[in-house]
Amino acid sequence: MGYQELTIEGRNAVIEAFRSGKTVDKLFILDGCQDGPVMTIKREAKKQDTLVKYVTKERLDQLSPTKKHQGVVAVIAAYEYAEVEDILERARTKQEPPFIFLLDNIEDPHNLGAIIRTANLAGAHGVIIPKNRAVGLTATVARTSAGALNYTPVAKVTNIGKTIEELKKEGLWFVCADMGGETMYRLDLKGPIGLVIGNEGEGVSRLVKEKCDYVASIPMKGEIDSLNASVAAGVLAYEIVRQRLQ
Amino acid sequence: MGYQELTIEGRNAVIEAFRSGKTVDKLFILDGCQDGPVMTIKREAKKQDTLVKYVTKERLDQLSPTKKHQGVVAVIAAYEYAEVEDILERARTKQEPPFIFLLDNIEDPHNLGAIIRTANLAGAHGVIIPKNRAVGLTATVARTSAGALNYTPVAKVTNIGKTIEELKKEGLWFVCADMGGETMYRLDLKGPIGLVIGNEGEGVSRLVKEKCDYVASIPMKGEIDSLNASVAAGVLAYEIVRQRLQ
Repeated sequence: MGYQELTIEGRNAVIEAFRSGKTVDKLFILDGCQDGPVMTIKREAKKQDTLVKYVTKERLDQLSPTKKHQGVVAVIAAYEYAEVEDILERARTKQEPPFIFLLDNIEDPHNLGAIIRTANLAGAHGVIIPKNRAVGLTATVARTSAGALNYTPVAKVTNIGKTIEELKKEGLWFVCADMGGETMYRLDLKGPIGLVIGNEGEGVSRLVKEKCDYVASIPMKGEIDSLNASVAAGVLAYEIVRQRLQ
Repeated sequence: MGYQELTIEGRNAVIEAFRSGKTVDKLFILDGCQDGPVMTIKREAKKQDTLVKYVTKERLDQLSPTKKHQGVVAVIAAYEYAEVEDILERARTKQEPPFIFLLDNIEDPHNLGAIIRTANLAGAHGVIIPKNRAVGLTATVARTSAGALNYTPVAKVTNIGKTIEELKKEGLWFVCADMGGETMYRLDLKGPIGLVIGNEGEGVSRLVKEKCDYVASIPMKGEIDSLNASVAAGVLAYEIVRQRLQ
């Protein structure tokens, strides 16, 4: 697959990118720009839940290789997102019970990259991320994934909770990491499973947590509150690997 | 303890910082500067194995809050390093078999911070890092440790291999993470233990690996080569936690 980040500049080019279905990760608009074409771009961005940033002319000039941005610069993931169905299909092809990571709003690209890397090595069939707020497949994510993005499919969904409901119909169980849950070593984590990892600061959101079958906790023996999100994902994923190997 | 990064500027102040035994993390010197006081500073830096960077006047001005740097700016960790003996003492006080992380040249401050965070939560008694090459306790490390740096002692040693030899006399066993080792689930990781984590790119160095009693491998089911260093540290540390809990 390979990954490249593309910058698209100029009003028509950006509108065309949206309309042809490209995944725009980020949109930079000149602060105060309100004319017709820019309003059209904003509408398209809203439909796609694209992150929009209003910036100064100096910042836009920096972002623009050609300096002909006409007030808009879009950053596009050349990497194509997969569909949830592709992930399930991958499990079927390998004749394994599905093992999927679901990330409930990971915001740091280094964490997202490290988690995709872990998903690959733990033998997960794919990673599901939400469209909103969370970081997408940016160049930093591609780099920190250490190549895993070329193998492990990543799907982007509108609503993690709804996706969990749909995957339950496919026979998956869901476990999320949170304090106050049952110690992970005591849970049965074999079989078709979705591992839900929460946001760096806030953890798993209430609505998503309510849909999980288990809440697993990692034993905490120290003075501070929580592990780094990508470390927590790794520790839980490998507890699943250990149980599956038995 | 609390952590703060201090910038010390000007020749006398920097010489004084070295002579009073402060831990200088980084030293910035105006490129081409060769006079007496600067040569003295360079000698002190060499004694301490401080990382020296030769930079332009513009860069120095940026680094200098007062702009009165006289060609030298030193970055100092206000955090005080512990001694290896402090770490052993901490295990004794808690009446637990020692559990120590040894980092063989972790270079990325985010990884170091995340590993100190993991060490705290996994109940390790301290972290040992080498003086040379590896990153020290910088502001980024303090931030990504999420407060763990205030609780978990970090000692800096000249030679990790020699420290392993000394700690073996205290009854510790050493396990390092590397490919081709025995699967970690099959090893007995209970008792007084030192967990050795290698460099991000090169892994554990040969000389250090030879001193380890076990080489543990994390099962790898994917297409890529290795986990992120802080994730690998977390996965191994929690296998130790699991076995200790049994």
